[in-house]
Amino acid sequence: MELTRRDFAKLGALGLASQAMPPVLAQAGGRKIGYCVIGLGRIADHFMRGTKDSSTSQITGLVSGHRDKALKIAAQYGVPATSIYSYEQMEAMHNNKAIDAVYVALPNSMHAEYTIRSAKAGKHVLCEKPMATSVADSEAMIAACHAAKVKLMIAYRLHYEPTTLKAIKLIRDGAIGKVQSINSANGFNIAKGEWRINKPLSGGGPLMDVGIYSLNATRYLTGEEPSSITASVSTEDHDGRFDTVEENTSWTMQFPSGALASCSTTYGASMPGFYRVYGSKGWLEVTEFGYQNLRLRANYRTGEKGSAPTILDEPNTELDPKQFTREVEHMTECILNDKTPQTSGQEGLRDMRYMQQIYKAAGITVL
Amino acid sequence: MELTRRDFAKLGALGLASQAMPPVLAQAGGRKIGYCVIGLGRIADHFMRGTKDSSTSQITGLVSGHRDKALKIAAQYGVPATSIYSYEQMEAMHNNKAIDAVYVALPNSMHAEYTIRSAKAGKHVLCEKPMATSVADSEAMIAACHAAKVKLMIAYRLHYEPTTLKAIKLIRDGAIGKVQSINSANGFNIAKGEWRINKPLSGGGPLMDVGIYSLNATRYLTGEEPSSITASVSTEDHDGRFDTVEENTSWTMQFPSGALASCSTTYGASMPGFYRVYGSKGWLEVTEFGYQNLRLRANYRTGEKGSAPTILDEPNTELDPKQFTREVEHMTECILNDKTPQTSGQEGLRDMRYMQQIYKAAGITVL
Repeated sequence: MELTRRDFAKLGALGLASQAMPPVLAQAGGRKIGYCVIGLGRIADHFMRGTKDSSTSQITGLVSGHRDKALKIAAQYGVPATSIYSYEQMEAMHNNKAIDAVYVALPNSMHAEYTIRSAKAGKHVLCEKPMATSVADSEAMIAACHAAKVKLMIAYRLHYEPTTLKAIKLIRDGAIGKVQSINSANGFNIAKGEWRINKPLSGGGPLMDVGIYSLNATRYLTGEEPSSITASVSTEDHDGRFDTVEENTSWTMQFPSGALASCSTTYGASMPGFYRVYGSKGWLEVTEFGYQNLRLRANYRTGEKGSAPTILDEPNTELDPKQFTREVEHMTECILNDKTPQTSGQEGLRDMRYMQQIYKAAGITVL
Repeated sequence: MELTRRDFAKLGALGLASQAMPPVLAQAGGRKIGYCVIGLGRIADHFMRGTKDSSTSQITGLVSGHRDKALKIAAQYGVPATSIYSYEQMEAMHNNKAIDAVYVALPNSMHAEYTIRSAKAGKHVLCEKPMATSVADSEAMIAACHAAKVKLMIAYRLHYEPTTLKAIKLIRDGAIGKVQSINSANGFNIAKGEWRINKPLSGGGPLMDVGIYSLNATRYLTGEEPSSITASVSTEDHDGRFDTVEENTSWTMQFPSGALASCSTTYGASMPGFYRVYGSKGWLEVTEFGYQNLRLRANYRTGEKGSAPTILDEPNTELDPKQFTREVEHMTECILNDKTPQTSGQEGLRDMRYMQQIYKAAGITVL
């Protein structure tokens, strides 16, 4: 059974849903759930370090095109050389009992293929965001995991992160009153040569990679799905970086309550991630969508006009890779307790649909 | 001759254009330029206090429907009772040599009538923003002032304000590199009974009153005129406040350079004014569009990648009504030196056109 947005909202309101679940090692007979990492890039490193810190999860396999690199990493994480696979032969993991699940950390356009192959190999799948590069691929991933009776979770790590959950809880509890408007931005100045600016690999520009944080935030903050979208895209730099993807995207969304969100993303400028939520009783803001240094600020008045406002300024001191530990432990919980992840394939599919609507609204053809 | 946006950009880049002008009292033979205030509401109070602090300008007349209130204010500012006019008889100021100009501080829909009547009475006009409630009215105001050979300035006080001018100068000097994206918001939770939520008086919702700050900022920050606009409006509260105007507006603009702006405004939430400009070398932010407490923050790197960034955090300690002093002194400069105000009728007309385009993009019928 899928958790609905409403369920998620309730879980959030009940306080840090992912933490509220029971200890799981008992169900696993004391064994940690084993993850095979597919793709050994930067984010995989964060994930592996986060998993190493976990009491419920561990790295038990690697899939890479560079065996030397993989052997080095395998040694660090205690993965036997026999659990290192090439991309071509990864189906062999089917018989590897130490591997319960995979973590797909490949360029976006490969998410579908490797999710589907992993599902067919009988492994649960934790897949990075964006889920895929098209709605059709996303649906195929969901169908494949359903058919193989394996879990599919999209790695929206902030859904398991305390500052984010506190912001959601404050809003659900009515602290800032009725949400009227949201601003959000997230972007960076990208280097030449990154796969992220190669559309066949990325599926799109900064929206797919970092704008998705703003998009997803507006949905978890409001607890609603957008009912209409307008958007603009542009490219200023003609230096070879933006031959296949756009440089900037800004968009507005309207939610059924009437709340409006305006969001920006870029690959051409320094744009520290943030969202600010404006309500009838005050506002709250979270800065940083990154792996650490999130900070919650708020200013709201629950009493009469003229009463003293509540002012919050709460830096989150947890360090990277704690967010990844929380994320993998949620996946492990779901595997052991046969639960649907809070950030299931359906959650990834929704963002994929909205991103395509943003592109369509901006006049860009999508698959 | 109209100053173009380019001229204004150059003046800004040369450093605080309004301050760079020569002392003016010599030209006036030592006499301060006299202003008659039309409409004695809240903003008129700021303007009169600001003018009182000026060495070049003074309050010399009042137009009000409440003679008792006007007499009290006249006493405070040394205005003779004979220089107090009713709305009906204000044309009599034509023969009042102590009145050089008027300051129109009435509800938006009355700006056109009182600007045109003042021009016909031979007085220069400083008119509050928004200039009017329609493009046709704005054009009529410009034509009337042109025909009467009087100045028309729209009271965009931030064009004369040091923190704003520094932000513009930093951008023109290339400190943050190529501007890719701008976020801005400005709004508040409006009380019942305000004329601002009565469309026949205001011409529209928060966009006309406070969103115009974000709109105008994106233009002075980029030094460009928007080439396309998308927008959404909504109303959540059905408590009698929003029977004639919308509660929320969010919009995106694209500029010829490719820079994108996403802006929000509301009458239903606490939304402290700000803009943040994202460039290829860093970002800058100004918080507050109000009468004091502006603050400039910036973080940019002019050297090589890896070099130390320049980090600015500069609170502006000038207190209200200093912005109004700067504003009126610019008008006085223009009167004495026969110059076109930097924020001329054309500047007001541009914003009026863009506001109408925002409304049209959001599906709202405009005049």
